[in-house]
Amino acid sequence: MEHKGFTLWFTGLACSGKTVLADAVAEDLKKRGMKVERLDGDIVRESLTSDLGFSEEDRNENIKRVTFVAKLLSRNGVAVLASFISPYNKIRAYSRNEIDDYILVYVKCPIKVCEQRDVKGMYAKARAGEIKNFTGIDHPFEEPNHADIIVETDKQSVEESKQIILNALEKMGYLL
Amino acid sequence: MEHKGFTLWFTGLACSGKTVLADAVAEDLKKRGMKVERLDGDIVRESLTSDLGFSEEDRNENIKRVTFVAKLLSRNGVAVLASFISPYNKIRAYSRNEIDDYILVYVKCPIKVCEQRDVKGMYAKARAGEIKNFTGIDHPFEEPNHADIIVETDKQSVEESKQIILNALEKMGYLL
Repeated sequence: MEHKGFTLWFTGLACSGKTVLADAVAEDLKKRGMKVERLDGDIVRESLTSDLGFSEEDRNENIKRVTFVAKLLSRNGVAVLASFISPYNKIRAYSRNEIDDYILVYVKCPIKVCEQRDVKGMYAKARAGEIKNFTGIDHPFEEPNHADIIVETDKQSVEESKQIILNALEKMGYLL
Repeated sequence: MEHKGFTLWFTGLACSGKTVLADAVAEDLKKRGMKVERLDGDIVRESLTSDLGFSEEDRNENIKRVTFVAKLLSRNGVAVLASFISPYNKIRAYSRNEIDDYILVYVKCPIKVCEQRDVKGMYAKARAGEIKNFTGIDHPFEEPNHADIIVETDKQSVEESKQIILNALEKMGYLL
C-alpha cells in the first residue's frame, strides 16, 4: 500500500534525545510497512557535509543540503526522519518552505538535564573551551516558534514521547 | 503500481546531449506512471553543490553528494535520471558501488561535434582561456570502461537514442 510521504524534523539540543526518539519512531513506521529513511549528522557527514563545521553559515548550509534530500524523498512517498540540532528559526522556516509535508518536532529538554546526560562528553569539552560554537554553551539555540509537536524528554519516557508523535501523525492522516 | 527504483546515470562531454536525452526519457517514464526525479548540475547547484568548482577534487565531491541522493531515492522506488559530465572512471565506479540499481549511459559524441553545438558558448570561452578546467579542452574525459548503454548522439536522433535506452531498461526489467 502506498502512503503519503512527509518529513518529521526533530530539533533540539545535543543529548535532548532526538536520535533515540527518531530511531524509535522509524522502527514503528517500518513495522507498518512504510518506506522510511533516517537522516542525521552521522549519516550525512561522510557523503554530504564533510566540509562543514559549526559556524552559523556552515550549520545553515548543512540544513540546506539535508532539506534538499528530505524534500525529494518526501515527495516520492518516503517518511523521512531528520534529526539535527537546527538551532535557528530562520533555517527551520526555510526547511518548512521547501518541504511540502514538513512536521517540526521540538525535542524539549532543559540544558541542565542534557548536560548531565552528556553521552559523548561533548558538553564537558565545550565547558572546558575545547569545542567552540557548541549549542547552548557558546552558541545560541532559539526555541522553535512553530513546532507542530512538542515532546519533553526530561518528563516523558522514550515510549511516551514516541506515542505522542505517532498520535499526532495519525491525526494528521500520515499513518498507514 | 509500484516499480523498482534505479538510477540511470548519463555521462558525457558538455553538449553531448545528456540533458535533452535524460529529459526525454524522464517524460516517457512519467507517462508510464513511474516516480521520476531528474538530477543535474542546474538542479543541485543551488541547494547541494554551491561551494564546488571544477577541480578534480571538487568534481568528485559533487558526484559523491549526488550519488548519496540518487542512492536514497533509488532504493525507495524512484527512477532517478542523473546527468553529469562525471569524467573519471574512478568516481563512476564509486557511484556504481554505492547505488544498488545503477545503470551507466555513455552519451557518446565526438568533441568536434559537441564544440560545434556549443549551446552556451562554453567551448569558445574554454578555447579562449576564459574558463579553466573545461572537460575535453584542458581537463580530461576518460571514456567509460563499464557503460551499460551507449548512445551516439552524432549519429542518432534524440528519439532514436531514447528508444535504445528504453529498450535496454525493458530488457533489464525496470519498466512498468
